[in-house]
Amino acid sequence: MEIHFSKQIYNLAKKLWPINRSITGDGVRETLSIIQKEVPELKIFEIPSGTKVFDWTIPKEWRVRDAYIVTPSGEKICQFKKNNLHLIGYSSSINLTLSLSQLQDHLYSLPDQPSAIPYITSYYEERWGFCIAHEERKNLQEGDYKVYIDSELFDGSLTYGEILIKGQSSKEIFISTYICHPSMANNELSGPCVTTFLAKKIKDFKKLKYSYRLIFIPETIGSITYLSKNIEYLKQNVVAGFNVNCVGDDRDYSYLPSRKGDTLSDQIAKHVLKHISPTFKSYKWADRGSDERQYCAPNVDLPIASIMRTKYGMYDEYHTSLDDLINVVTAKGLEGGFNALWKAIEALERNSYPKVKILCEPQLGKRDLYPALLTEHTNSKVMQMLNLITWSDGAHSLIDIAELCETPIWELYPIVKKLEDHKLIELYNEPS
Amino acid sequence: MEIHFSKQIYNLAKKLWPINRSITGDGVRETLSIIQKEVPELKIFEIPSGTKVFDWTIPKEWRVRDAYIVTPSGEKICQFKKNNLHLIGYSSSINLTLSLSQLQDHLYSLPDQPSAIPYITSYYEERWGFCIAHEERKNLQEGDYKVYIDSELFDGSLTYGEILIKGQSSKEIFISTYICHPSMANNELSGPCVTTFLAKKIKDFKKLKYSYRLIFIPETIGSITYLSKNIEYLKQNVVAGFNVNCVGDDRDYSYLPSRKGDTLSDQIAKHVLKHISPTFKSYKWADRGSDERQYCAPNVDLPIASIMRTKYGMYDEYHTSLDDLINVVTAKGLEGGFNALWKAIEALERNSYPKVKILCEPQLGKRDLYPALLTEHTNSKVMQMLNLITWSDGAHSLIDIAELCETPIWELYPIVKKLEDHKLIELYNEPS
Amino acid sequence: MEIHFSKQIYNLAKKLWPINRSITGDGVRETLSIIQKEVPELKIFEIPSGTKVFDWTIPKEWRVRDAYIVTPSGEKICQFKKNNLHLIGYSSSINLTLSLSQLQDHLYSLPDQPSAIPYITSYYEERWGFCIAHEERKNLQEGDYKVYIDSELFDGSLTYGEILIKGQSSKEIFISTYICHPSMANNELSGPCVTTFLAKKIKDFKKLKYSYRLIFIPETIGSITYLSKNIEYLKQNVVAGFNVNCVGDDRDYSYLPSRKGDTLSDQIAKHVLKHISPTFKSYKWADRGSDERQYCAPNVDLPIASIMRTKYGMYDEYHTSLDDLINVVTAKGLEGGFNALWKAIEALERNSYPKVKILCEPQLGKRDLYPALLTEHTNSKVMQMLNLITWSDGAHSLIDIAELCETPIWELYPIVKKLEDHKLIELYNEPS
Repeated sequence: MEIHFSKQIYNLAKKLWPINRSITGDGVRETLSIIQKEVPELKIFEIPSGTKVFDWTIPKEWRVRDAYIVTPSGEKICQFKKNNLHLIGYSSSINLTLSLSQLQDHLYSLPDQPSAIPYITSYYEERWGFCIAHEERKNLQEGDYKVYIDSELFDGSLTYGEILIKGQSSKEIFISTYICHPSMANNELSGPCVTTFLAKKIKDFKKLKYSYRLIFIPETIGSITYLSKNIEYLKQNVVAGFNVNCVGDDRDYSYLPSRKGDTLSDQIAKHVLKHISPTFKSYKWADRGSDERQYCAPNVDLPIASIMRTKYGMYDEYHTSLDDLINVVTAKGLEGGFNALWKAIEALERNSYPKVKILCEPQLGKRDLYPALLTEHTNSKVMQMLNLITWSDGAHSLIDIAELCETPIWELYPIVKKLEDHKLIELYNEPS
Repeated sequence: MEIHFSKQIYNLAKKLWPINRSITGDGVRETLSIIQKEVPELKIFEIPSGTKVFDWTIPKEWRVRDAYIVTPSGEKICQFKKNNLHLIGYSSSINLTLSLSQLQDHLYSLPDQPSAIPYITSYYEERWGFCIAHEERKNLQEGDYKVYIDSELFDGSLTYGEILIKGQSSKEIFISTYICHPSMANNELSGPCVTTFLAKKIKDFKKLKYSYRLIFIPETIGSITYLSKNIEYLKQNVVAGFNVNCVGDDRDYSYLPSRKGDTLSDQIAKHVLKHISPTFKSYKWADRGSDERQYCAPNVDLPIASIMRTKYGMYDEYHTSLDDLINVVTAKGLEGGFNALWKAIEALERNSYPKVKILCEPQLGKRDLYPALLTEHTNSKVMQMLNLITWSDGAHSLIDIAELCETPIWELYPIVKKLEDHKLIELYNEPS
Repeated sequence: MEIHFSKQIYNLAKKLWPINRSITGDGVRETLSIIQKEVPELKIFEIPSGTKVFDWTIPKEWRVRDAYIVTPSGEKICQFKKNNLHLIGYSSSINLTLSLSQLQDHLYSLPDQPSAIPYITSYYEERWGFCIAHEERKNLQEGDYKVYIDSELFDGSLTYGEILIKGQSSKEIFISTYICHPSMANNELSGPCVTTFLAKKIKDFKKLKYSYRLIFIPETIGSITYLSKNIEYLKQNVVAGFNVNCVGDDRDYSYLPSRKGDTLSDQIAKHVLKHISPTFKSYKWADRGSDERQYCAPNVDLPIASIMRTKYGMYDEYHTSLDDLINVVTAKGLEGGFNALWKAIEALERNSYPKVKILCEPQLGKRDLYPALLTEHTNSKVMQMLNLITWSDGAHSLIDIAELCETPIWELYPIVKKLEDHKLIELYNEPS
């Protein structure tokens, strides 16, 4: 019954890998159109450059045709077409010959990671520059260097995508991921790829309780833009949600809270991660760094938490060319990220306030719910049922009860079903 | 002034020991009539078989005249008249000759405790069987066995007893114990015997504040029956109470909470046990197993906690013939159980919300409450008085204050008296 | 900008040192008139002997002209004029010749601290006696001793001082210290001396938000007297405050809570001390012993906490002639006590409920608040600003925010200023 999407998610990531994404531009559009093939419900929005979005302004659109450096010996290096990380994001156009020392002011490398090309952008201050592996930079010879960047900054638009899957309720689960990073895997092809397959699986879920809104935006400016257009609606309708990023390596599981730290999303994220991986890392709001900064800003305060594999900034390959689909992100890593988020969504769907319909303990025996022979196994099953019943007082949610029973919520689903079938409990949407 | 009941409680247990109790039947009636001799206020109630009590139905009454097995060599074994544990509770009548291997299907023993006769019942499924020490079972020879059970299951009634001791208030303290176990001592002759003497001592208490309701019922079906008749009254009037069981061995002290865990009964139980025995065992609601399951069921939610010596299931002799009045239950053990419960009752009676009647510290010196010479001892006495005064703000109960002062509440009773006599504090029933 | 008062505070202590203070009398008046020279706003009040103050009565006034003992060999010892601790406080007049053994009943010394003269008083029971170093007492020879005390107990008055410094609000910060101890330094010349200079510094504070009331009273009877006259006004107007004592040695920092333990004064005291000295000692209400006993008595309940250096009773020299201005109290110790209290006052003044004025994160870059080059230092500065912004939701006070950011509140003042200048936050007096 459970479909293993891992291979498909990984293949989508491979397909999206070479595209030069940024906070605007054709790379974003190409990425969204590939995702649209997987989920045709994806709608694409364009917001013009210069639009005011809260304290910010949509920047010019960036287009690159080519970029490289020619060394004194005539070798072409830092070729954008070979690796889009070579070019600083939002670099302006240039065609110039420079001495090595003049060039050095425009080169960026990591002495501690000599083989890595760093990832650098300059969205809001016009400049140009190249990123290069430190071991290559060290061997550059004196002489004249030709630098060539054929790029354009022009009044265009910022592009984002949105999927809406309607459930029985107009109350929504909000899932956000970003599509502004060029060729890096965990941060951030894993987020949009896992989110695409979450959308597919949500569509297949029978009798969906909540409506689901999944957005694919550029980080920061994208979430601010989206919020500036939709904040009132979101504040009224969103009951829980997750910011999806860094969900592709198979090394760790991580949780980062909402600002308030006590929302339903936080409760479920911690519950799921604890039972998937008791040693998961629990970060604090002070460790934030992605779009939760906007979703949980004061007076925005959407109930958005983060479920991650290894968090941005917490692994060596972060924001370099080493964050790849070979050594960092794997099909197994993506499957783990997908699985954790899916378990959280399932918990949201199946959460309720169960209430036992009779006073005192029900007589399980007359309903064949109490085994004639109590072995250690059947005894633990009976105890699980009795524990579920004893907390089904209408005041505790199923997720509360799972915590009280120290059991994963998913082990309670079949028991809830059985007790409902025997008309021993009723499920309510609200505490009573 | 303090009467030591330990010997008397132990003697009552010895008198009740041989009676064949079950959830119904003459053994219960005989037990209650002996208790009635100690406390004539005990009223006995009979509820007919077939009566619906919430999700349950009062079962048929069980009567046994005799039961035994005759071995191939003519020896009478498993004689009910020698030890009532030999016969499975609620065994139906039988008169049959069987081979050893046919007999084995109806024998129950404990390989790990070869000298113990286990305690087994089958109230709601008709069957028959014998319990036997494993060492005896192993030596049974091939051949024909005559099994003989002269018992009866018939439309009779379930019997229980109730003592009501009226105090100044109609608010009640509810104490429940069970009288359905045959010849076993800690679980459960200790409960009814200690409860009988609690009733005697409550009757002697001067100016009783609360009314006291003490019930002697069969476990589970009895508490469900009692609740089905009295739940509305109990919910309105019961302010605290205890389920009394396993209060007779001198090995441990134990606390099991109410379902909500924060009732007055819980606060007092923990306070008393902490000061009697700092190493007492504190169980969780998940460890429940006795009538608290009914009293604290969702929407019943009476404030009932348990104060025990060694908890059911937590000692080797539990539910076997080894749970006796020689090696397990002792006069000293019963005295400890009685004492802990009595200290809890006394705390309920003496609890109040003291409020100091003057602003700032009173001048103790002019009332001779401040010793001229401060030794270490008098200094600690003065500090105890000042600590009691400083927390007598009308918002804290005496039990709260005892916790704040890290002192047993009973050390505060004489100080409260002294301060009241000097008109320095007033006692209120409610926080102000 | 920060004026170092340490030398001046120490000099004031030296000037006040020789005066014979008690709970009444000319020593108090002389002390207050010297303080008045530093802070002319000090008003002096006289409350007649015999006045009823809550449960107490203002005692007679005590005046001493001379006191000493003449030994058999004609030597004058225990001379009050050499050390006022030699005479028990409130000793009555006497002129008598006694044998050594008769004299011994009136001598007090400390065998464990043979060189120390103990500090003893008898305010409410008339007696006479001398305090003497144990090493001196041991060498007293048999023979006739002449004891001479020229003192007077008469209907006079109890004297106290009060400084009121008005701020923009009629809400008050209440600071109390006591002036009833004769020649001892930490307990208690440090309190009145530090408080005098707090008053001077408060007067210099620009745009004072709160009004400040600083009182100089005798301990216990003084605070009770003051409260009996002003309790209604204080309960309506005081928002925070401190009892100032034992603020002069350079060994420790200590905190003693208000009775309720969760007032603004408690929050600020703990915050300041934690960041000044992470190893500060945190006492409990059970450890109280000074005027907080009155200010926090039930139904008085002013929000008064204590910030101290080494607490009374917790250092060897306490209440003896060894508590001096040489080995115990130092300029550096006084400066530390002053500084801690000043930081607390500053925190009260600068505390507010900041609220960010825009939705989502502000764009710091366009305001030059985001450095072009992120070094470790600038990054931590930016993070501090972003952390302040993220908690500026109108529900958290600046002191709450400092706790959430795990940073001393004083590091936030310049950031608050910068954000206010950029109109990014607004400051409110109340949570919103």
